[in-house]
Amino acid sequence: MSIQEQTPVTDPQTDTATAPEPTAPQGVREAVLAAASAARDAQPALARLTRDRKDAVLLAMAEALVARADEIVTANARDIEAADAAGIEAGLRDRLLLTPERVGSIAQQLRDAAALPDPVGEVVRGSILRNGLELRQMRVPLGVIGMVYEARPNVTVDAAGLALKSGNAVVLRGGSAALHSNTALIAVLRSVLAEQGLPEDLVIGIDEHGRDGVGVLMTARGLVDVLIPRGGAGLIARVVENSTVPVIETGTGNTHILVDASADLEAAADIVVNAKTHRIGVCNALETLLVHRGVAERALPLLAERLAAKDVTLHADDTAQEILAAAGTAARVVPATSQDWETEYLSLDLAVKVVEDFDEALAHIRAHSTGHTESILTRDLESQRRFLAEVDSAVVMANASTRFSDGGEFGFGAEIGISTQKLHARGPMGLPEMTTTKWIVVGQGHVRP
Amino acid sequence: MSIQEQTPVTDPQTDTATAPEPTAPQGVREAVLAAASAARDAQPALARLTRDRKDAVLLAMAEALVARADEIVTANARDIEAADAAGIEAGLRDRLLLTPERVGSIAQQLRDAAALPDPVGEVVRGSILRNGLELRQMRVPLGVIGMVYEARPNVTVDAAGLALKSGNAVVLRGGSAALHSNTALIAVLRSVLAEQGLPEDLVIGIDEHGRDGVGVLMTARGLVDVLIPRGGAGLIARVVENSTVPVIETGTGNTHILVDASADLEAAADIVVNAKTHRIGVCNALETLLVHRGVAERALPLLAERLAAKDVTLHADDTAQEILAAAGTAARVVPATSQDWETEYLSLDLAVKVVEDFDEALAHIRAHSTGHTESILTRDLESQRRFLAEVDSAVVMANASTRFSDGGEFGFGAEIGISTQKLHARGPMGLPEMTTTKWIVVGQGHVRP
Repeated sequence: MSIQEQTPVTDPQTDTATAPEPTAPQGVREAVLAAASAARDAQPALARLTRDRKDAVLLAMAEALVARADEIVTANARDIEAADAAGIEAGLRDRLLLTPERVGSIAQQLRDAAALPDPVGEVVRGSILRNGLELRQMRVPLGVIGMVYEARPNVTVDAAGLALKSGNAVVLRGGSAALHSNTALIAVLRSVLAEQGLPEDLVIGIDEHGRDGVGVLMTARGLVDVLIPRGGAGLIARVVENSTVPVIETGTGNTHILVDASADLEAAADIVVNAKTHRIGVCNALETLLVHRGVAERALPLLAERLAAKDVTLHADDTAQEILAAAGTAARVVPATSQDWETEYLSLDLAVKVVEDFDEALAHIRAHSTGHTESILTRDLESQRRFLAEVDSAVVMANASTRFSDGGEFGFGAEIGISTQKLHARGPMGLPEMTTTKWIVVGQGHVRP
Repeated sequence: MSIQEQTPVTDPQTDTATAPEPTAPQGVREAVLAAASAARDAQPALARLTRDRKDAVLLAMAEALVARADEIVTANARDIEAADAAGIEAGLRDRLLLTPERVGSIAQQLRDAAALPDPVGEVVRGSILRNGLELRQMRVPLGVIGMVYEARPNVTVDAAGLALKSGNAVVLRGGSAALHSNTALIAVLRSVLAEQGLPEDLVIGIDEHGRDGVGVLMTARGLVDVLIPRGGAGLIARVVENSTVPVIETGTGNTHILVDASADLEAAADIVVNAKTHRIGVCNALETLLVHRGVAERALPLLAERLAAKDVTLHADDTAQEILAAAGTAARVVPATSQDWETEYLSLDLAVKVVEDFDEALAHIRAHSTGHTESILTRDLESQRRFLAEVDSAVVMANASTRFSDGGEFGFGAEIGISTQKLHARGPMGLPEMTTTKWIVVGQGHVRP
């Protein structure tokens, strides 16, 4: 499954991200905590299911979604109507829209999840201690996962499917703009759970409580085991800064490529164009290009020409501007400001900087990267070694497009997000990252001497 | 290395744990952020060291501590003097006290750390993808670790040694009562770093900024990669509730043993006595004993007799009281209140409850456990299977004393704490848990089709 498209523009749901959290009305508070508590109570029933049973549930859900596609599309039409009335931007509208074909694709995500190996029960380590105690460290579900995302109904089903497959109950909060779509989708999933003799509250939506509901969910410590925000930087910042529930931070990618002095320039042009333009609204798209001074005069005009053909605007530092001007480039070039080094454009814009040497490149990345993905294009062994060793990002690459930083490309089969934090999971997260472990110790009357 | 002794009584440092965090004075704020920033800038120099170099640094530190033991003991005498004047409790005083012999033991912790395998560089997973991209997931240091603990000078050196061995810079905040001792110890460690040509700020103390300093450290997001609180429940709660830096929650252990209907009662008595009395001030000590109704009449008098011989007070529920009274026990028995089910006594006290059946035992554990360690004593295969599968704690045991829930006992060689959370690390944490991973991707001009 491919990486999620992000929202490049400010979204009404997230634009007050850094404001202090308001206190939610008591009714919302009670309702959301009751939902989290219900999910928590439901989860043990799922934790005990075999893989065969879990897969059967996912396949039944896929079938029910297809069977009830009309109902889902009708609910979605209400969201689309409201969005159109509010003058929604075309990209956001497209992500919100469901058709019978799209419902079919969503159902297929569940079949794909069913086909993946079950992470639960995997013995990660094990031994018999010298005193005879038998020790095993085994993967078990996290418990209750809270997913907070934007108005993308496919995420509702994808997140629920991956959570269930890994033995977790899930509390879902999609964007308010998708309220009717999400409600319809969740109703289908819950009815299948009931048919299969499982608690409906394994999948529970809190969209009707709006932004306040997220605030309560973030404080449901002891009821929710982990919160995973997926979406724009504002949403993620709000959750990371205010949550007392542990959070896995995902997705913000201010991604760099360094064209080293020794780079193969034709290959470099292919990779830079691919990284920037293959898909622009995703977190592994290229945002800042660093070019080594030693190759800048040859590299920049070539790169600019190839990028101009794809309609990319270059936000260039002084040296890059001079070189491009001297070469008479056809590319659209604007002066870079300090803000450009921090920006995840998610658009046909690219920051460009000429670095005097390798150390300046590393220092720039250290100062401005979000720790998602960086790549070096080089033919020099020592440059490659140092870059891979010294750049402290979730994914470090040599001679490859940043677009490969993706759970699907890594062979995980599914991806719940890309973690840019260092605890628990770093980089693309698949099903094993949705589990924890427990230690199982079996003795025969052992006491400590 | 053994599990840390905890502080059973309220500590001046932690007794306002649930109060809102006060705003630190600007001077403290600047100083603590400068310290965290200096540690962050220093860390890459350490990350590049080979294991041989890191071990040499640790051994030199051990030597310097022994050579400068007088200076350390003299500084400690100032802390002890102040503590005596303040009327410190005997147990706390003993943990604070340093002697030349104890400095020798502290130095030995560094030699032990040097002898452990280096987690950094371990390739956790790796493959060549179908398109030829080479993929490796490798352990790397977390970066900067913040350690917040109570007035135990040995933790200062132990934490610094384990952090350095795993490639991390460390910001240390011990209790104010150990200010002079910690300052002297950190001065020795820093002088060795300088002698070895490394940045002194790899080890940095912020004790002089007191409680306010901790408040600032908790908000040093982007400078500190993880905070590890070690100590009493109040300290841990303060950090967990207020930190915006990711936290690894350690140590609180409301630990249960279930004596099942089929238990071997002689073995059960040995295990219960061991778990409760082997060492009382530690997080893996037994706190609540559950006894199956079917065996309570035979088990309780025997267990009470053995526990009474060790001076344990039983906080018993009604049924247990009746059975013990009918048996004419010599044990000290007091009625249990609902508070007893929640209490980590860390003393010669034990909560005792008779459960009607296995399900009531599981429900009690689910409601009251802190998720640290629980053990079942049974001869029944199905009871053991269900207990190990259904109890959701970091360590679940059968027929063994809870005292085995320890990094040293598990063979880790070192232990930085015992995590009771589900993210990143669960249960005893050794050196690998002080690392993260990064993905290294090497291509030959790969672009995404």
